[in-house]
Amino acid sequence: GYGRTGIIYYEDNAGLPGNDTQVISRLRMNLDATTSTDAGVDFGGRVRLQWDQNNATRGEQATLNAGKLFVTASGLTVEVGNVDTAFDGAGLLYAEELGSYDRSVGVRRGSFFSYNTGPNPSATYQGLAVRYSIEGLTARLSYVDPDQTGLVADDEELSLSVDYTWNDALELSGAYVTNGAGIDGNDAFFLGARYAVAENARVGLNYLDSDLDAAGRTVWLYGDYTLADGATNFEAYIANNNSDLNETDNAFGIGVNYDLGGARLGASIHRDNAERVTADAGVRFNF
Amino acid sequence: GYGRTGIIYYEDNAGLPGNDTQVISRLRMNLDATTSTDAGVDFGGRVRLQWDQNNATRGEQATLNAGKLFVTASGLTVEVGNVDTAFDGAGLLYAEELGSYDRSVGVRRGSFFSYNTGPNPSATYQGLAVRYSIEGLTARLSYVDPDQTGLVADDEELSLSVDYTWNDALELSGAYVTNGAGIDGNDAFFLGARYAVAENARVGLNYLDSDLDAAGRTVWLYGDYTLADGATNFEAYIANNNSDLNETDNAFGIGVNYDLGGARLGASIHRDNAERVTADAGVRFNF
Amino acid sequence: GYGRTGIIYYEDNAGLPGNDTQVISRLRMNLDATTSTDAGVDFGGRVRLQWDQNNATRGEQATLNAGKLFVTASGLTVEVGNVDTAFDGAGLLYAEELGSYDRSVGVRRGSFFSYNTGPNPSATYQGLAVRYSIEGLTARLSYVDPDQTGLVADDEELSLSVDYTWNDALELSGAYVTNGAGIDGNDAFFLGARYAVAENARVGLNYLDSDLDAAGRTVWLYGDYTLADGATNFEAYIANNNSDLNETDNAFGIGVNYDLGGARLGASIHRDNAERVTADAGVRFNF
Repeated sequence: GYGRTGIIYYEDNAGLPGNDTQVISRLRMNLDATTSTDAGVDFGGRVRLQWDQNNATRGEQATLNAGKLFVTASGLTVEVGNVDTAFDGAGLLYAEELGSYDRSVGVRRGSFFSYNTGPNPSATYQGLAVRYSIEGLTARLSYVDPDQTGLVADDEELSLSVDYTWNDALELSGAYVTNGAGIDGNDAFFLGARYAVAENARVGLNYLDSDLDAAGRTVWLYGDYTLADGATNFEAYIANNNSDLNETDNAFGIGVNYDLGGARLGASIHRDNAERVTADAGVRFNF
Repeated sequence: GYGRTGIIYYEDNAGLPGNDTQVISRLRMNLDATTSTDAGVDFGGRVRLQWDQNNATRGEQATLNAGKLFVTASGLTVEVGNVDTAFDGAGLLYAEELGSYDRSVGVRRGSFFSYNTGPNPSATYQGLAVRYSIEGLTARLSYVDPDQTGLVADDEELSLSVDYTWNDALELSGAYVTNGAGIDGNDAFFLGARYAVAENARVGLNYLDSDLDAAGRTVWLYGDYTLADGATNFEAYIANNNSDLNETDNAFGIGVNYDLGGARLGASIHRDNAERVTADAGVRFNF
Repeated sequence: GYGRTGIIYYEDNAGLPGNDTQVISRLRMNLDATTSTDAGVDFGGRVRLQWDQNNATRGEQATLNAGKLFVTASGLTVEVGNVDTAFDGAGLLYAEELGSYDRSVGVRRGSFFSYNTGPNPSATYQGLAVRYSIEGLTARLSYVDPDQTGLVADDEELSLSVDYTWNDALELSGAYVTNGAGIDGNDAFFLGARYAVAENARVGLNYLDSDLDAAGRTVWLYGDYTLADGATNFEAYIANNNSDLNETDNAFGIGVNYDLGGARLGASIHRDNAERVTADAGVRFNF
């Protein structure tokens, strides 16, 4: 898990009443339990415990989420329950995010299921995911039935994604989802590529097209650069989205992280599709 | 704790609307904390964290239960709070269960308190349990006051059970409960015996008589047989219950488990007292 | 964390309906996660899991509280979130408490924020605390904004406290809080001193003055004495409070603890400001 804290400023509090600048913290603990069979197959389960300052449901008290069970052998992992979905797991889908909070704006990714940190959408939610890794390749396939009793919801989500890294320099990532989030006809596809133009500099281009009108199509150009100290990393993105809900189609941000070795300081500043500015500064540590 | 997942089929979904076949998973983590005094007495506490797929209250999110505290020395254990009750702890009470899900049908065991995986029936629930083990003998005594304020409920449950194993071959188990589940006059008693007719085969006979008309009296004949591979175990039971609620008094099932060394695969098929068929197949692993 | 259980008697059940004598147990687990940077700075987070028998919200099931994050280096600790407040952390503020339950009566300490074992008062609660320790000195400063959105509550609590130990014999403790618990004008101050008159005997005097009329001003005289066995500790206090709500201004208690080395047995008896007698006996163990 990890912890992070700091301050986030959002112009006009993102259009809501309340202070523009607030302290936002998170504490996440993944509770894993595993065992191995005589043949070297690993079985395990995970429940997540998380507190999110200001969050309506996880703010007053930390909460537990729904569990998942998994089995792993020879690079193949199968998950059941509250699974990591294939589309959400695409390697570069969130590659443009900045700072200690891993934030970006101007991104309308559409709707699809992902690992639920909060409660599952229903008690009868059922996910199945398969992931296979070999050399530089990772392929994922997932299926989510939002209500396996069949009484409430009828449409199941199916998604797949593939990541490939070539020569430690070129990363490719593609994903497709159909009936995303269990919404009939809500398909989306994603393509991303990132290339290390130097040992300390990378440039990436992402493309996401969602059938949801409100989400539209997004193109990102992004990159990062590490200083000679090996600890200071600058990063930036520009995102173009064509949704009619935007006041402006272009959003962008720039950020910096400083590696403390075990923790990192980070800050970023962005302008979103409503032409509002947001900035953050904080610290994040993994454990 | 343990994890398990797989599929369960129930004819006509056991008479409820919804699909007959569903994926049913569980993730259970027992959070124990213990300490020892200089004199070698162990003190400890336990809280359980559990997720149950499809469960109305533990399905969307894993939940915590009520705690218990215990002290152990020289084979004697005393528990306070959400205790393991004596009747529920009788060694053979669930001995007929089959497969990776440890299921059986056609069994109306009546009502009595047990260790609560969900919430306690009330915040003022108070249990006290004593367990003593020596050689092949284990004796248990428990007392549960469902409301120790005395404002809501008046009747306390008292139960006791004794298990004895003779020569690693014969197991005997008996239990008695009075005011079971805090219901005035709800008494029940249980007798069970299982004998190893060979090194790899056991046969058992259980008898349970509940004062609750709806539960009635149940007689079980059950047994299991392990193949020469030492890993494949067949098991079966037939249960006769005389409740007026049954369409047929006899229920039965047959199952199989395959030991993976650290996990097990299992499957079973049953016919219940409503003449419905149910079957399951899955995997279970302990950690 | 720790566990404790035993019985508490309260005359007339403290004026409420219900039995006078009840079993009261607690199980507390602090879930900590920490990491260290290369420079030796420690980052961490804590969530508490607690079950309290008979408690309206933590009785049926154990609950999680809101998290806090902290960073520690060279004696300086900074906390964010659900913090330990300075006033509540004053070293002698609870020094008069007796027995395995650490109870006292006749004490109206007023209202101020403290580390919340239950939920935070709101999801937007934000605390910041600084603690510095060097030699025998510990200084604390804390700031709590009960609603950092500014939409609901406007008054922030500020508190500070200082503890000093001289020559392992004299302990001094002082604290001040303004806008305690976010209540405008609710200030309070505390002064305490304890002196070891012998190696096995201590005497203390505390003074707390709250601006809340219902809390008033309290003076405590308290002390403890350890027998030559080094394990049996007698302790007592008398508390004088001038609130108009009292039937009598003086409350007092006497208690004893016996150290088992890893656990302790304790008992105490008190008379409160309503002239009611309360007594307890139990066991407590840390882990």
